[in-house]
Amino acid sequence: MTLTHDTPTTPAAGRGLDADVDGESLTTLGASLRAALDGPFAVERAAARRAFPAEGMLRPVHYGVDESREWTLARLRELSARGFGSSGVPERAGAHADPLAAVVTFETLAHGDLSVTIKSGVQFGLFGGAVTNLGTAWHHDTFLPSITSMELLGGFAMTELGHGSDVASLETTLTYLPETDEIEVHTPNSAATKAYIGNAARDGHMAAVFGQLIVDGKSHGVHTVLVPLRDEHGKDLPGITTGDHGHKGGLLGVDNGTIAFDHVRVPRRMLLDRYGGIDDTGAYRSEIADPNRRFFTMLGTLVRGRVCVGGAGAVAARRALSIATRHALRRRQFPAPGRPEGVLLLDYVVHQRRLLPLLARSYALGYAQNELVAALVAVQGDAPSTERDQRELETLAAGMKAMQTWFANHAVEEAREACGGAGYMSDNVLTGLRGDVDIFATFEGDNTVLMQLVTKGLLTDYRQAWSALDRGGVVAATTRAVGEMVMERTAAGLMLDRLAATARRRPEETTLVDRGWHALMFEERERHSLESLARRMRAAGKAEGDAFESFNRLGPHVQFVARAHLERVMLAATVDAISRVEDAETRDVLERVCSLYALTSIAADRAWYLEHHRISGGRSKAIGDQIDALCRELRPHALALVEGLGVPAQWLGAAILED
Amino acid sequence: MTLTHDTPTTPAAGRGLDADVDGESLTTLGASLRAALDGPFAVERAAARRAFPAEGMLRPVHYGVDESREWTLARLRELSARGFGSSGVPERAGAHADPLAAVVTFETLAHGDLSVTIKSGVQFGLFGGAVTNLGTAWHHDTFLPSITSMELLGGFAMTELGHGSDVASLETTLTYLPETDEIEVHTPNSAATKAYIGNAARDGHMAAVFGQLIVDGKSHGVHTVLVPLRDEHGKDLPGITTGDHGHKGGLLGVDNGTIAFDHVRVPRRMLLDRYGGIDDTGAYRSEIADPNRRFFTMLGTLVRGRVCVGGAGAVAARRALSIATRHALRRRQFPAPGRPEGVLLLDYVVHQRRLLPLLARSYALGYAQNELVAALVAVQGDAPSTERDQRELETLAAGMKAMQTWFANHAVEEAREACGGAGYMSDNVLTGLRGDVDIFATFEGDNTVLMQLVTKGLLTDYRQAWSALDRGGVVAATTRAVGEMVMERTAAGLMLDRLAATARRRPEETTLVDRGWHALMFEERERHSLESLARRMRAAGKAEGDAFESFNRLGPHVQFVARAHLERVMLAATVDAISRVEDAETRDVLERVCSLYALTSIAADRAWYLEHHRISGGRSKAIGDQIDALCRELRPHALALVEGLGVPAQWLGAAILED
Repeated sequence: MTLTHDTPTTPAAGRGLDADVDGESLTTLGASLRAALDGPFAVERAAARRAFPAEGMLRPVHYGVDESREWTLARLRELSARGFGSSGVPERAGAHADPLAAVVTFETLAHGDLSVTIKSGVQFGLFGGAVTNLGTAWHHDTFLPSITSMELLGGFAMTELGHGSDVASLETTLTYLPETDEIEVHTPNSAATKAYIGNAARDGHMAAVFGQLIVDGKSHGVHTVLVPLRDEHGKDLPGITTGDHGHKGGLLGVDNGTIAFDHVRVPRRMLLDRYGGIDDTGAYRSEIADPNRRFFTMLGTLVRGRVCVGGAGAVAARRALSIATRHALRRRQFPAPGRPEGVLLLDYVVHQRRLLPLLARSYALGYAQNELVAALVAVQGDAPSTERDQRELETLAAGMKAMQTWFANHAVEEAREACGGAGYMSDNVLTGLRGDVDIFATFEGDNTVLMQLVTKGLLTDYRQAWSALDRGGVVAATTRAVGEMVMERTAAGLMLDRLAATARRRPEETTLVDRGWHALMFEERERHSLESLARRMRAAGKAEGDAFESFNRLGPHVQFVARAHLERVMLAATVDAISRVEDAETRDVLERVCSLYALTSIAADRAWYLEHHRISGGRSKAIGDQIDALCRELRPHALALVEGLGVPAQWLGAAILED
Repeated sequence: MTLTHDTPTTPAAGRGLDADVDGESLTTLGASLRAALDGPFAVERAAARRAFPAEGMLRPVHYGVDESREWTLARLRELSARGFGSSGVPERAGAHADPLAAVVTFETLAHGDLSVTIKSGVQFGLFGGAVTNLGTAWHHDTFLPSITSMELLGGFAMTELGHGSDVASLETTLTYLPETDEIEVHTPNSAATKAYIGNAARDGHMAAVFGQLIVDGKSHGVHTVLVPLRDEHGKDLPGITTGDHGHKGGLLGVDNGTIAFDHVRVPRRMLLDRYGGIDDTGAYRSEIADPNRRFFTMLGTLVRGRVCVGGAGAVAARRALSIATRHALRRRQFPAPGRPEGVLLLDYVVHQRRLLPLLARSYALGYAQNELVAALVAVQGDAPSTERDQRELETLAAGMKAMQTWFANHAVEEAREACGGAGYMSDNVLTGLRGDVDIFATFEGDNTVLMQLVTKGLLTDYRQAWSALDRGGVVAATTRAVGEMVMERTAAGLMLDRLAATARRRPEETTLVDRGWHALMFEERERHSLESLARRMRAAGKAEGDAFESFNRLGPHVQFVARAHLERVMLAATVDAISRVEDAETRDVLERVCSLYALTSIAADRAWYLEHHRISGGRSKAIGDQIDALCRELRPHALALVEGLGVPAQWLGAAILED
C-alpha cells in the first residue's frame, strides 16, 4: 500500500549554493522553498530580513527581571528608531495604516528576542491600536505621535484578576460625572484589579482602560478610556496603584503588572469614542444601537493582535525546528552496520518521525497564515469590506492563533528533547523560546475559548445557509449542500472541493498520497462533525433540565469541529499555494510536504475516520508506512526545508550549531 | 452505551474533615485515597511527610544562577544534617544500604525545590552510588563517610559531549601505567569532554569518571575511576579543566559543567574495581569474563537513579495537577443559566477532560511505581535475587522513568494552561516546575532510548519463551501462549489475565467500564504488537541489503510495544492495588479512577483497536461519552482525589491558592 509520488525527486546531494539570499548562503532549493512559503508577501518579508539587524538580537540568557526589562526597552527604542516597531501604525489622524507592514515587522521581530517582540506588540499593537481603532481624530492627533516615537509608553488594561476570557463581565467602572464633565475610573473590588498588563509594572505612563461605561446611572457596556498612570518621575499618580508581577515563566523583559483605580478622574474626551461616547449634553450616543453588536465591534479591533501573535508563535516553532533539524544533521549516535562513525540523528526513522511531520505542519500553517494576513490586509486596508468579511477574518484569526501557538509549544518541546542535554543549555536558545512562547497559548485569547469562537462562527454560517435555502423553498436541501455552502467560500476552498470530487466515487481505490483523497477526508471530517454538532445543538436547545449542562456536554465536540475546520483551511491554503509554484523540483518537494501534513493529520484522527466508515481498517493501517516513506523521501531535503522556513541561519544563535 | 459503575457513589458534599493527617486537614476520602496510593510504603511516606520541613522549601523565583547554587547547596546541607539527603546510602563498608529510604527521601525532596532534589541525587545517588556499587571496601571506608556528611562533594562523569546515550563509545581513556602503578585519565579530543556533569562547575572536588580502561595496551571496556578535581581553594587541579554550562532551562541550583583531563594520574586503587580491576601484578582481572555482560552489570547499578527520577517526575506532575485542580475549584468563568456568579472552571466538561484523566493517570502511574520500588527493594535489599529479577527491574525502571517523565512534562504544561495567565506567574510555581522537569525526559537515559531498552527486554523474554517451548517439544505452541508466558510473570499480571478471560468470549457485550474488557484490550494490544514486532524482527534479520535500515524502520513499532507493555503494567498494578482497599467508598472512587485511566488509554489507541478488529466502530464512538460520564462522576471527588496524590496543601506554595 505504500506508494511514492509519481514525480521522482532528484537527490539533493551536490546541489550548488545560491550565495547571499537575504544575507545568507542558501541551497537553490532552500531559496526556492523560502520564496514559496513567503508567498504573496515574499518581497516584504525578504526586505525585512535584509533590513533587520542580526547582531545583538538575543538577550543574554542569565539576565534577571530588572536587567531584562532595561535591555528590552533599550532594544525596542533602538529598533524603533531604525524603523522597526511602529511600522504600520499611523502617526496622526488620517495617516495611512499599513497592516501588512505591521504584521511583517512583528514576524521579523519574533526572529529575535520575544520580549522585545511582545513589548512592541503592547506599545504599538495594543496601546497604539486601541487609540487608533477605538479613538477618533483628537486622540489620534494628540497621542499617536508620542506613541509611535515611544515618548509615551502605555498599557492595554483589559484583563482583570477575576475576568480573563470573560471581557463582558469586567467590573471596572467608567462613570460619567456631568458636573465636572469627567469620567471617573474605579476598581470596585480586588477581583476588578487590572492584571498581567504589559508596561504596567514599570514603563507605562498611560493605559487604555476597559470598563463598564455608566452614563446617568445606566451602563452601556464595555468602553475604553485613556488614563495617565505615572508622573514624570515614574511614580503612581494619585488614585493609581500599580503592582508588579515580577518573575514569570518567560518574557522577562516585559514588565507585566497590576493596576487599581481609586476614583480616578479624567476629562470626558479621554474616552475612546469611535463606537460609543458622550456628547456635549452629557448623553450617551453610539452609531451601533445594539449593545452586543457594539461590544463585538470593539473587540473586533483586536484581530490584528491575534494575527501577530499567531505569526510570532509560528516563527518560534520555525526557529526551534531549524535548530533541532540542523543539529540532527550534525550529531551522530550509536554505531551501526556500515556506519562505524555512528548514525546521524536524522537518519533514525524515529527521529525523522519526530521532526519532519512538524516541518510539514509548519509549512501548512504558514500557507494558511498567508491567507489570514491577506484577509487582514483586505479588511483593514484601504479597500472597502463587508461585515461578513470582518467576521470571517475574526474567526480565522482566532483559530489560527490557537493552532499556531499550541503547535509552537509542542514543536519547541520536541525540538528541545530532540537535542538532548544540549537542548537544555540556555545558550542553545530552545528553553528560552519554550518559556517565552508558553503564554502565547493564553494571551490575546485563551486557545480553548478561541476554538469555541471558531465553531460559533461556523454554526452561525451554517444556520444562515439553512435559512437561505429554506427561504428559497429548497425543502429537500440536504445537510451536505448546507455544509458545502459553509465551507467553500474561498478560491482555495473551491479548489479543494474540486479535488475532493475526483476521489469521492471510489475513495478506497486512490493512493494514500492522492490529493483528492486528502481533500475528501478533510472535507468530510469538517462537514460531518459540523452537521452533527448543529443537530446536537438544536436538540440541546430543546432539552429539558439544566440548559448549561445540555450545552456543556458538547464542549469536546465544539473543539473537534474547530480543529477539523482549521486543518481543512490549512490544507486548502497549501494546495492553492503549491499550484502557484513554477519550479518543478520545488513543487515536487512541496507536494510531499503537503502529503506528509495531510497524512499526519488524518493519522491523528484515523479512529474518527474508521468510526465513521470513511476509511477501511487496512487502509488506516497502511498510513504509518506511508508517513515513514514520505519522511524517507524528504530526508535528503531536510536542510533545504529548514532554509525554506525562512529563519536566517546567522540569527539562530544556538551555540550547538557553532564551531 | 454510556454506563455507570454498579455501585452508586455517595455525594462528597458535607463530608467531615479528618484533622491533621500528615500535618494537614484532609477530607476522610482524601486521607483514605492517600493511604491507598502510598500503598505498601504508606508508613514510610507518611513519616517522611511529617518529618520534612514545610517552610523554606521553595527557592525565591527571581534567583539567578549564582544565588540559586548558593541557596541549593545550603539547603541540601541543612536537609542532610537533619537526616534527609543521604538516607539509604551506607556510610562505610558493610553498612546497611536502604534503597527504600533512599527512594522515599528522594520523592519527598521532590515536593520542594527540584534543584535540591537533583543535587542530592548527584551527590548521594550518582556519586555516592558509584562508590557504593562499583567500589570495594577501601573505597567505601575511605570515601563514604565524607560523601554522606557532604564534606566531599562529587560528580558522576559519564556523559561526554560527543556521547550521551551511547555509553559504550565513551572516548575518555583510563590507562594503567605499571611503572608508577597509576591510572592516567585523559580526554583525547574535545568530543570526549565530560559534559552536563552536576557538581562539576563549582562544588565538586572529585568525580567518578567513566572511560575505557586500557591495561597493557588492551582495552577492557568502560570502567570508573575516582579523580580529584579541585584543591582546597576550589581551583582546578593540574591537568583538570572544568567548565561551566551556566544558565539552563531549569534546575538553576545544580552546577552542571564540563571536565577535561590532560594526562591526569591517580593511584591504581582509585579505580572502582568491584566488577573489574587491576591486580598487584598489573594484570586486568574480573569475575565477569564477558565484556558485554560486565558492561551491562556496571550500568545496572544505575537503576536506582532511574527509579528516583521517575518518582520525582511523578511528584512534579502531582504538584502541578494539585495546583491546577484546586484553582479550578475556586475560579469562576462566564456566567450561565442558573449560574449568574459564573461557572466554576472545573464544571466545564472541557476542563474536566483536561484535568481529570491526568489525575487518573497519576494514580495508575503511582501504583506501578509502587511495584517498581518493591522490585528495587527486593533486588537491592538484603534478600537474594536472581539475574532475571535484576534484568526485569532494569527494564521496568527504564520504562517507568520514560512514562513518568513524559507524563510530567505533559501534565505540568496542561496545568499551566489550565491556570491561564496566573499559571505563567512564577510565584504560582508551575512554570518553574515546567522548566525543572523538562530535562527529566533526557537525563538518566533519553526516554526514547529507554523505551527501546524496554522492548529489547520483552523480545529477549519472548525468544527465551519460544525456545523453552521448543525444547519442551511443543511444536504447535501458539504465539499466544508465548505472549502469555512473557506477560504474566507477576501476581498482578495473573490477576489481570484472569479478568481478561471473563471478557474474551463476548467482548462486545461487556460494558465500557467492565474491568475484564479493559484487561483484555490492554493485553491484546501488548501481545499482538509484541508478536508482530518479533515477526518483523526475524524478517529484518534475514533481509538482504542495508541491515541498519531493515531494523531502523521498526523504530516506531518498537516504541509502540514498549508503551503498550507499560500501560498494561500500570493497569495491572492499579487493579491489584484496588483489590486491597477495604473501605467501600474509597474502592468505589478508585474503580472509577481506574476506568478513566483505562478508557483514556484505549481511546488514545482506538484506531489501533479498530484496525485490528478488537472493537467495533459503534463501541469506539461510545468511549468519549463514557469518559465524559466518568469525569462527571468523579467531579464531586476532585478535591479528595488531589489530596490522595499526597502533596500536602501547605507545601504547594502557589500564590494563586492563597487568600
